[in-house]
Amino acid sequence: MKDATLAQPILTVALSETFDLVANMAEASDPRVTLVRPDEVEDPGAVTCALAWRPADDAFDAFPNIKMVASIAAGVDSIMNCPSLPSGAVVTRVRDEEQARMMAGFAVWHVVHHHRRMGEYLDNQATGSWSRKFRADMSSQVPIGLLGFGLMGQHVAKALVALGYPVLAASRSGGASMDGVEIVSGPDAVSRVAGRARMLINLLPLTEQTQDVLNAELFATMPEGAVLIQLGRGEHMVEDDLLAALDSGHLAAASLDVFRQEPLPRDHVFWSHPRVVVTPHKASDTTRHEVLRQLADNYTALVSGQTPPGAVDRDAGY
Amino acid sequence: MKDATLAQPILTVALSETFDLVANMAEASDPRVTLVRPDEVEDPGAVTCALAWRPADDAFDAFPNIKMVASIAAGVDSIMNCPSLPSGAVVTRVRDEEQARMMAGFAVWHVVHHHRRMGEYLDNQATGSWSRKFRADMSSQVPIGLLGFGLMGQHVAKALVALGYPVLAASRSGGASMDGVEIVSGPDAVSRVAGRARMLINLLPLTEQTQDVLNAELFATMPEGAVLIQLGRGEHMVEDDLLAALDSGHLAAASLDVFRQEPLPRDHVFWSHPRVVVTPHKASDTTRHEVLRQLADNYTALVSGQTPPGAVDRDAGY
Repeated sequence: MKDATLAQPILTVALSETFDLVANMAEASDPRVTLVRPDEVEDPGAVTCALAWRPADDAFDAFPNIKMVASIAAGVDSIMNCPSLPSGAVVTRVRDEEQARMMAGFAVWHVVHHHRRMGEYLDNQATGSWSRKFRADMSSQVPIGLLGFGLMGQHVAKALVALGYPVLAASRSGGASMDGVEIVSGPDAVSRVAGRARMLINLLPLTEQTQDVLNAELFATMPEGAVLIQLGRGEHMVEDDLLAALDSGHLAAASLDVFRQEPLPRDHVFWSHPRVVVTPHKASDTTRHEVLRQLADNYTALVSGQTPPGAVDRDAGY
Repeated sequence: MKDATLAQPILTVALSETFDLVANMAEASDPRVTLVRPDEVEDPGAVTCALAWRPADDAFDAFPNIKMVASIAAGVDSIMNCPSLPSGAVVTRVRDEEQARMMAGFAVWHVVHHHRRMGEYLDNQATGSWSRKFRADMSSQVPIGLLGFGLMGQHVAKALVALGYPVLAASRSGGASMDGVEIVSGPDAVSRVAGRARMLINLLPLTEQTQDVLNAELFATMPEGAVLIQLGRGEHMVEDDLLAALDSGHLAAASLDVFRQEPLPRDHVFWSHPRVVVTPHKASDTTRHEVLRQLADNYTALVSGQTPPGAVDRDAGY
């Protein structure tokens, strides 16, 4: 079908203000895609597809006939927020089961790290001290809350269930279901999940509705001694509210992989906070090859009159 | 049934050379069990049940009518090796699904810790450096080998499969099967699994056959850059052989939770080895309550003429 619908490679312009997508994707290739920089385009009117990540506000103005914009990742917020994004363009995201399983491994590491206090063992090793005093609660006594139950959330939940943790998941649609997972939906799903979670994992997409959702009010609803694991987007969290919740002792700890400013500034208090684990936005990456493969599949579906499997709901924002 | 078969609590003598089991179990209680110290026993001939952990060589000599000896843990090696263990006594181990899930969480933490190089992120946090250079292989490219596929191994495997890791399991019986797990059995199962594993997790019971199984010959069969995760018993591993394999660069790293001498001596090289993660035998503990509950259930089955669910095969040694 692909050959039938694609006489020639998809001329795709790479639009990013923050880095050179063409160089970044260089290690990968797909015979169905020709990826070029804006200044390499001879006839802008002939360009109907874009690969984008944090595009400049006016990035799309030069390309009036863009039909599809593919994100290089699972998130599309940096594209949806672009003022020049053509209103008629289909926006696609990467949907990668392997990436979701990598996210699950990363999330589980943080859950166990806090539950079993693995950091204390690493510290004790540095001083050569053998301390067996701490007895962790059984996993069945440690409910884990998930904010977001899409592809990522479902893989995280599956792994947590296998490890015996009770899982609560806030899901806007409330559609999916899974053995061992209590789905909580509705307008107050996020606070209802947070109110019962010993550890709260944020996997929400960034939209107008979810911006700043991790704030003082939500932290106050979490149980005393709860832990936040923030794997969504930096803009989901009000950083000062987290610091206040940690310093008051209400929250025991936090693992943060995303930040309002990345790289996290060298002098940011998170780096040295004794109860914060900082990772440099590495929860999960998809492969370059997968990005191009899905772009080609999505575009092929679009020109065949089908809905691209990776198409997002532009009204919902993800 | 229990009430019918047990007119009175089970008089159980606590036998351990290394610590006071009665004090250790104090936080738990079961109305069906009366746990006493040897010097508290008025009529040794009336004692038919023992709770044991590393009993003295002659621990059982004073109690000629012991019918059942319960281990406080999943392992029974310290009991099977006791010269005074009555040949006719049934030996039981704890079989605890919750404990097995705790073991799985601990094992998965180490797998992800090495696979994703989480330790480098912790080190980088200490110096405030944001480094995203490392790109981990997808989990599907990182086969994990399990030595032992009993209750513990099966729960570890289930979690690893959920995270997308290919799993190979060496199983003496070869009985169990699981989606996503390749069972390897037969005399050379251990070396065949080790030969294909990027990470090798030891969960074997300690027997005459498995003592020193983690040795130079086995390490040599492991792929260059492989990682050992040792969660079995200290006596499974030849420590100098591991150090040689690490220092030659053949093995990339090791996580060690058990040691030939515990506590690990303060001056042991493992404490300060840059590629060894040391934890103080904390992979998983069962609860005190569960130990007593299963002792009572096992003894009740025994006196009812049934095979206790926790009974081990004394010929196999576990």
